[in-house]
Amino acid sequence: MTFSVTILGSNSALPTTKRYPTAQVLNVSERFFLIDCGEGTQLQLRSNKIKFSRINNIFISHLHGDHVFGLIGLISTFGLLGRTNDLHIYAHSDLEKILQPQIDYFCNDLRFELVFHHLNPREPELIFEDKNLEVTSFPLKHRVPTCGFLFREKQKQPNIIKEAISEFNLGIADIVKIKKGEPFYDGSGNPVDPDKLIIPPPVPRSYAFCSDTGYNPAMIPVIKDVNLLYHESTFADEHIDLAKKTTHSTARQAATIAKEANAGKLILGHFSSRYDDLSILEKEAREVFQETYLVNDGDVWKIKST
Amino acid sequence: MTFSVTILGSNSALPTTKRYPTAQVLNVSERFFLIDCGEGTQLQLRSNKIKFSRINNIFISHLHGDHVFGLIGLISTFGLLGRTNDLHIYAHSDLEKILQPQIDYFCNDLRFELVFHHLNPREPELIFEDKNLEVTSFPLKHRVPTCGFLFREKQKQPNIIKEAISEFNLGIADIVKIKKGEPFYDGSGNPVDPDKLIIPPPVPRSYAFCSDTGYNPAMIPVIKDVNLLYHESTFADEHIDLAKKTTHSTARQAATIAKEANAGKLILGHFSSRYDDLSILEKEAREVFQETYLVNDGDVWKIKST
Repeated sequence: MTFSVTILGSNSALPTTKRYPTAQVLNVSERFFLIDCGEGTQLQLRSNKIKFSRINNIFISHLHGDHVFGLIGLISTFGLLGRTNDLHIYAHSDLEKILQPQIDYFCNDLRFELVFHHLNPREPELIFEDKNLEVTSFPLKHRVPTCGFLFREKQKQPNIIKEAISEFNLGIADIVKIKKGEPFYDGSGNPVDPDKLIIPPPVPRSYAFCSDTGYNPAMIPVIKDVNLLYHESTFADEHIDLAKKTTHSTARQAATIAKEANAGKLILGHFSSRYDDLSILEKEAREVFQETYLVNDGDVWKIKST
Repeated sequence: MTFSVTILGSNSALPTTKRYPTAQVLNVSERFFLIDCGEGTQLQLRSNKIKFSRINNIFISHLHGDHVFGLIGLISTFGLLGRTNDLHIYAHSDLEKILQPQIDYFCNDLRFELVFHHLNPREPELIFEDKNLEVTSFPLKHRVPTCGFLFREKQKQPNIIKEAISEFNLGIADIVKIKKGEPFYDGSGNPVDPDKLIIPPPVPRSYAFCSDTGYNPAMIPVIKDVNLLYHESTFADEHIDLAKKTTHSTARQAATIAKEANAGKLILGHFSSRYDDLSILEKEAREVFQETYLVNDGDVWKIKST
C-alpha cells in the first residue's frame, strides 16, 4: 500500500526556473490527494505522470495566489478531458465566490460537479474520511485564514492466521470478535494467546502539511508523532524579523516544531527566492532536528509500512 | 535593432510536458510585447530570461482559458517585484470584468496602474503606437470574439551621409527636408542625386499573430506582405471537419492564408494534443507554402533588417 508525497512545487510566492509555487500530491494506494494548487500544477502533474482521473479531492491551505492560481486551469483541463466524477475542494469559503465566476465564464460546459467544502480556520476539524484515510484540518498562523492538513491512515483490523480457523474451529462471529480484539476461549474454556490467532495490522501512517505559517506551537498536539512533516521554511535565521513580519517561519522554527511534535522526519519547502544556496536552511534546522531535508520539485517522499 | 518572436507556449488547450498553452513575446529593440498569456507564462518568461520589467503591453487574442489563465499570476508577480510602471492590457472588454475581482482579492497592494484597452472584434483597428511600432488588431473567426494582431515597424527616415554635410554645406533645415524626401539643390541650382546625400532606411519589418481562428481569408488584405506569419494549425487534413466544427484551422488552411497574403515565412502552432508526430502538419502545409515551420516552446524567430 503506497503512502507517499510528490512535491510539485516548492518555492514561495515568486517561482523560479527550478521551483514552481506550492503544490503537492499525496498518494494513498493510488488515490491522489492534491494539496494546494499554485500556477503550473497541471503541468507538474503531467511531468510527474500522475493520472488526473485519480484526483477527486483538492485541499487548499489558504487563498494566496501562489497556492491557488493553478486551480482554474486544472478544472478547465478536467472538463476538456471529459471528467464526470465529482471534484471536492476543501478551502476557505471565499474560494467559491472567487472561482465560480471564472468557472461560469471559462468552463461553462463541465460535466462534473464541483463540491466546495468550507474549512474552519479556528480549530481542528475532521474534513474527509474514507475506508483508508482521515484528513483533519487545523489552524495555522498566517496573514489570512490558513489551515494545515493532517492525513492519517485509519487503524486496520488484524488479519486472522489461516491455520487458526481450522485449529480452533472459528466461525464468522468468532472472527469478527477476534478482529475487534475481544478474547477468544478454546473448547476447554481457556483463553487463547492472540499471537496464535492474528497477525497484527500495520501501524497507521501519517503526513502533515503546514504552509504557510509563522512559528505556531499550537499545532504540536494535533500533529503529535506524525511520520512525515512538511513545514514551510521561507527564511534563514538572519531573516527572523522578516519571518515574523510576514508570518512565515525560519528553518530553525520548523525544526523546533518537528522536535516538539516528535515527528519521524521533517521536509522543508516554500523557500524565499533570495537564497541562491539553500543549504544554510538545512544546516540551521538540523542543529535542532537531525532528520531534516530540503525538498525539490519532483521529489517523492515515501512512508514505508511497518 | 532586434525584431524577434520568442515562443513561450505552442500547444492548444491541453498542455503537454513539452508544450505550454499559448503565449509569445515579441522583442522590438528590447521592448517586449506579450501576446496571449496561458498558464505558466511567467515560468516560461523566466526560463527564456526575458526581463519582466521590459513588458509594458500585453495583447490577449480572446478569452479562452488556454490564452489567459497565466495573467493573474503574472500580474501578482509584477506586484511582488515592486513594479510601478503602468501595465497596458489589450483584450475583449469582458476580461476586465473577470480579472478585476481576482486582482482586488489577491493583489490588493499593486503599486502600478492596470490600463485596460478594449478590443474591437469587428474590424481592423490601430490599437498601439510608439516611435518604432504600430499594432493593429483585426477580426479572427472563432467561437468567441477573437482578434489577431499585426505588429509593424514604422517607416524610418533615411540617414544623412556624414560627408555630404560639409560637401554641400547642409544646414539643419536642409537636413530635415532631405530626410523627408524633398529635392535638394546645390549652389549652382542643380538637383543633387539623393544617393549622394542619404543612406536609405531599413525596410519596416512586420509580424502577424493569428490564433485561434477557422479558415478566414478576410484577414489576407490586413496582413498582406507580412514578413513572418504565426497562424494556428490545430489539425491535419484528416480532421478538417473537426477544424470546421471547433472553428480552428488545418495546417493546409494556414498555408493557404500565408500564400495568398504573400507572407515571407509561416510558423505554425496551437497543435492538438492528439498528434504524437506533428510532421504531417508541416508536410501538408508545405504542399501549399514551402516556407512553413512548426514552432517549439523556446524558439526565437528573428526577422533580419534589410
